[in-house]
Amino acid sequence: MPVSAQTDQIPEQGLFASEGPGGPWWRLNTRQPVSYEVRLHPRLLDPADPTLADAGAAAAQPAGQERRRLLVVESTVYELYGYEISRYFTEQKVDYEVLVIDAHERVKTMDLVMKVVAAMDGFGIVRRAEPVIAFGGGVLTDVAGLASSLYRRSTPHVRVPTTLVGMIDAGIGAKTGVNLGQHKNRLGAYHPAVTTLIDTQFLRTLDERHIANGLAEILKIALIKDAGLMELLESDGARLISERMQAADSLDQGRGAKEVIRRAIQGMLSELQPNLWEHRLTRLVDYGHSFSPAIEMRALPELLHGEAVCVDMAFCTVLARHRGWLTREQQDRIIRLMGELRLPSWHPVCTSALITRALQETTRHRDGRQRLPLPVGIGQACFVDDLSDTELVAALAELRELGHLREDVAL
Amino acid sequence: MPVSAQTDQIPEQGLFASEGPGGPWWRLNTRQPVSYEVRLHPRLLDPADPTLADAGAAAAQPAGQERRRLLVVESTVYELYGYEISRYFTEQKVDYEVLVIDAHERVKTMDLVMKVVAAMDGFGIVRRAEPVIAFGGGVLTDVAGLASSLYRRSTPHVRVPTTLVGMIDAGIGAKTGVNLGQHKNRLGAYHPAVTTLIDTQFLRTLDERHIANGLAEILKIALIKDAGLMELLESDGARLISERMQAADSLDQGRGAKEVIRRAIQGMLSELQPNLWEHRLTRLVDYGHSFSPAIEMRALPELLHGEAVCVDMAFCTVLARHRGWLTREQQDRIIRLMGELRLPSWHPVCTSALITRALQETTRHRDGRQRLPLPVGIGQACFVDDLSDTELVAALAELRELGHLREDVAL
Repeated sequence: MPVSAQTDQIPEQGLFASEGPGGPWWRLNTRQPVSYEVRLHPRLLDPADPTLADAGAAAAQPAGQERRRLLVVESTVYELYGYEISRYFTEQKVDYEVLVIDAHERVKTMDLVMKVVAAMDGFGIVRRAEPVIAFGGGVLTDVAGLASSLYRRSTPHVRVPTTLVGMIDAGIGAKTGVNLGQHKNRLGAYHPAVTTLIDTQFLRTLDERHIANGLAEILKIALIKDAGLMELLESDGARLISERMQAADSLDQGRGAKEVIRRAIQGMLSELQPNLWEHRLTRLVDYGHSFSPAIEMRALPELLHGEAVCVDMAFCTVLARHRGWLTREQQDRIIRLMGELRLPSWHPVCTSALITRALQETTRHRDGRQRLPLPVGIGQACFVDDLSDTELVAALAELRELGHLREDVAL
Repeated sequence: MPVSAQTDQIPEQGLFASEGPGGPWWRLNTRQPVSYEVRLHPRLLDPADPTLADAGAAAAQPAGQERRRLLVVESTVYELYGYEISRYFTEQKVDYEVLVIDAHERVKTMDLVMKVVAAMDGFGIVRRAEPVIAFGGGVLTDVAGLASSLYRRSTPHVRVPTTLVGMIDAGIGAKTGVNLGQHKNRLGAYHPAVTTLIDTQFLRTLDERHIANGLAEILKIALIKDAGLMELLESDGARLISERMQAADSLDQGRGAKEVIRRAIQGMLSELQPNLWEHRLTRLVDYGHSFSPAIEMRALPELLHGEAVCVDMAFCTVLARHRGWLTREQQDRIIRLMGELRLPSWHPVCTSALITRALQETTRHRDGRQRLPLPVGIGQACFVDDLSDTELVAALAELRELGHLREDVAL
């Protein structure tokens, strides 16, 4: 039942001129080639390893010229890793400057982008040879990515995600963005990093709630397209949180952190590749992202992004069961796993007024149709355009009930 | 000698995964198809003609749904044409709102973009079905274009250029942008309008200086690639200014306004088509745009964009003659035509300090090489990377002299 990826129709390339009734007329057809990489790379800050210092630079760097880099580092990351980062670039003989910024949803605005832009301008970045390197979670890499997109209409950037969400979601796609008022990511650009370098050792210092936050986006991939990943999360999810995704590879046996991350990235990138600019607005990866933008912005700062996404996924799970696309057992299994992953399946801001408005806004964002991904069994999904207010209200009532039950159990 | 357009190397499309030394590794290759049109269309505001009201809307506009449009209109254009614009959209039964803004170089900043963005948000634009329509000169269409690019990471827009520069240059490419401090167009995006609709009747109300301003960019196309266009400007340029490009078609005989505009657009688009995102930084259309950004920003508000471009072209003409690529007769012919087109070939801000700094900044913008287009005879150009300070100073001294001579003649 899932809609298969449509290949974009590529028109013939060229400039076509003719004479219309009113005068001359032209059509210009072209295409922009885009290529980027995502790489797991342990011990990224090992001073002997040039990978990070060389990442994303054009091959044509003038010989003998000193490498220069602007680093944009999230403040908590700088507290924890500032010394290692400085040592790394010093020993790599890179002439670098560091911009340290607080980055979280409430300051994720164009003002913060302009701060990064000012640092780029002050540093005097050369157009293509000196990629900005961004260290931080999804908010930081989104902001630095948008600044890079705007500066000289496109400056390369490299992402070093330091959170699990960053490593498997925000840091590996093409989207950059900032909030506008209450609207999440209303402004932005498609501007993927030349390279995203993932070192899971950064997760050692991430708190468990933020690990769970990342697992929510991994659960999304599992639910829409990878039933095997769902089983991995069921068998190992709780352990992955307490071990902060650090299980030694020798113990991993293809069931641990590395495999979970690999499958999540593989799932995400394979959805993005044929549709990087969202020319097609029916996107499986929008699962959990139909109601959550409004939920997250309303509940700020209470819910993390993945937590809001999880509430949305729980809600859509119930909606799908009401349509007969999930059994009660499957619904129970999903909601139970959310609990094991310490993720909420309910939040009090979810009034029917908010949910209705959220769907209206999402419909506008999807060009006038709901295009709502709903699960069909475990590991598949389809799209609906005809969700009614009655269905919303009924599912919301059931979810509220389930949420209260879970709280009772937790007590 | 002109560098021929290199075709972009398009890598094989797809998602490629493998296992690197540090773990899994992916490369994502794709391409973004882009297609847009430029159309001369007289009597655009004729209430019986749906062209403008329908322009740029996705074919999939839900049947029976009212068309909605946000219009962004430059304040002078609104004074002159506000009534006609309102009557047009009213009679076309379009539900529209108008945002009127002052748009000139000194306010061409991200703040102005955010004003447009706020209006888009207030209007509740649907993602792809409701293109923003921008009426104005290059500054206005650049600002509205950048706002459209940022809003929902890409909202379609339609341009109705009302100045000659807009019709043959700023309004027909992919670039949008705003200034940052003293840096012209330092921030921006590549986001062409779905359609640019050109109605030369708007030029009736443009003052002669702004007509000349547009002819500077037309002269650029002539000098780098169209010797025939140069001859047209020599024979008819002065008349085109006084007639404000309005000569009746019957009198036009292929030598008038329409032919000049057609050749200028054809020349510009044929340079842009193979290199829309400037992956290649050696661009013929950068002729006149190497020193002029600094000249224009320093001389603000004294010089119009095309005037600053003309000073740059005059300077590069002398540089090329000093290298033996133009004869003195050709140099004289170019400088004389600039005078006939009422364009400056000199401005007192052109100190050697400013010119040297301008070249340094342009070199940074061209990724560390000068890539300076210089004319070779009339209608051709080549690129140099080895311009010396000595050459700059010598050419500047000669140009200053020529400029003073011209002033004397004018007296």
